[in-house]
Amino acid sequence: MIAERLSDKSYRKSEPLYIQIAESLLAQIEAGELAPEERLPSERDLSQRLNVSRMTLRAALRELDSRGLLVRRPGDGTYIAEPKIERHADKLVPFTLSMQQRGYRINSRLIVFEHRLANVSMAKRLHIPVSTAVFYCQRVRLINQEPVLLENCTMPAEIFPDFGKYDLENRSLYEIMETEYGVIAHHSEQSLEAVIATDYEAELLNINPGSALMVERRLGFDQNDLPFEYGHDLYRGDRFRFFTDIAPMEALEEG
Amino acid sequence: MIAERLSDKSYRKSEPLYIQIAESLLAQIEAGELAPEERLPSERDLSQRLNVSRMTLRAALRELDSRGLLVRRPGDGTYIAEPKIERHADKLVPFTLSMQQRGYRINSRLIVFEHRLANVSMAKRLHIPVSTAVFYCQRVRLINQEPVLLENCTMPAEIFPDFGKYDLENRSLYEIMETEYGVIAHHSEQSLEAVIATDYEAELLNINPGSALMVERRLGFDQNDLPFEYGHDLYRGDRFRFFTDIAPMEALEEG
Repeated sequence: MIAERLSDKSYRKSEPLYIQIAESLLAQIEAGELAPEERLPSERDLSQRLNVSRMTLRAALRELDSRGLLVRRPGDGTYIAEPKIERHADKLVPFTLSMQQRGYRINSRLIVFEHRLANVSMAKRLHIPVSTAVFYCQRVRLINQEPVLLENCTMPAEIFPDFGKYDLENRSLYEIMETEYGVIAHHSEQSLEAVIATDYEAELLNINPGSALMVERRLGFDQNDLPFEYGHDLYRGDRFRFFTDIAPMEALEEG
Repeated sequence: MIAERLSDKSYRKSEPLYIQIAESLLAQIEAGELAPEERLPSERDLSQRLNVSRMTLRAALRELDSRGLLVRRPGDGTYIAEPKIERHADKLVPFTLSMQQRGYRINSRLIVFEHRLANVSMAKRLHIPVSTAVFYCQRVRLINQEPVLLENCTMPAEIFPDFGKYDLENRSLYEIMETEYGVIAHHSEQSLEAVIATDYEAELLNINPGSALMVERRLGFDQNDLPFEYGHDLYRGDRFRFFTDIAPMEALEEG
């Protein structure tokens, strides 16, 4: 199957050969011909089948690896990675709820919970005076025991007195806010950025420094349109894809 | 100002010192106290002012550097980077139009334009039979002569006969589609992923391999709800931030 695809003359002529090979393998993964958890043939077999040098094959596999599409198990072989988890970028669906709906077992590891005084930028975001007391909470979120998300949340202490007394390892912050304080997340302003993991983040997420991370910044507003939390969440790039819904092109008409 | 901020006792106790220093500098950048194109004091001056070792200071600067917040000019100094360009992730605003509205001079470098036959996954996406002729177009998009986006677009050849005869370096593809073929981009299905740049991509974008990239996959539908293009665009992570608009939390009510 792999060899057949490569003989298709429609493949790129102007790009390096290893990119063509990577694209061919990618197309098969996307078409479901190579399924998650499937083991690839050995490098020797695969390079013979594709009629390319092992050096070219390795460059192609590195390409797929950098896209998070392969899992290398030293001493065993190379496997097709599980598909990424899909998150909606344009809906405020709390992580806990969204993962539970998918049937994942999720929990958290609390790294930092402390009082702080709001600095200038945080005060501006949360519509509070500079040096007002806030809570800062940093948690690693785990899916089926695998760390996938480093969550940083800051909230005005006045809105959530004694927040630290609740079980921050097993409950959702949004659920605690709603159940214990009557604060309901209504809408948010969000942005997404691609960055690479620092040593500190990589250690907490059990990945290599320099891996790709998706940063979600989020200012959450309650039912009264007041900001109640600022989030700065780091999602593992190899585990998440963010969808935005179909949207009609209003902006063009404005322009 | 920098020293003042650090003496604020609200700063993190449970995280490494270099993270605290980085956060403090970040807060000042976000609050506009350190402005784009401003030069930082020398390492020696800055470490004395902050009362930390030069090693800690360097780790903090590496942290900010990995976020694309610094520009290092060897032999000169370290500067605060320009703010990222904002894109709306939930509106189908063509890149050309959106950048022109911001007053940027934009143009393109055509890397590949060729006929291909649709493979299984592309055929499925574009609702066409396998092996149907498509055009594949790869362009580097430049803002004020700086390469910032590697664009890959595939479209059914039947809808856009002789597409290659138009000026693909100076015109927007969407503008050509509309003006020359009457195909109007109406809505799209989009996703965003964080990945690291391969050697090939890094070379075209004039960045280091391993830098962060934002991948936008986009299936564009025309005014008759038919898919007319599949895009796979790589945005430089250090130059773009993707916004999603305020959205009420409908998903929760469904769940």
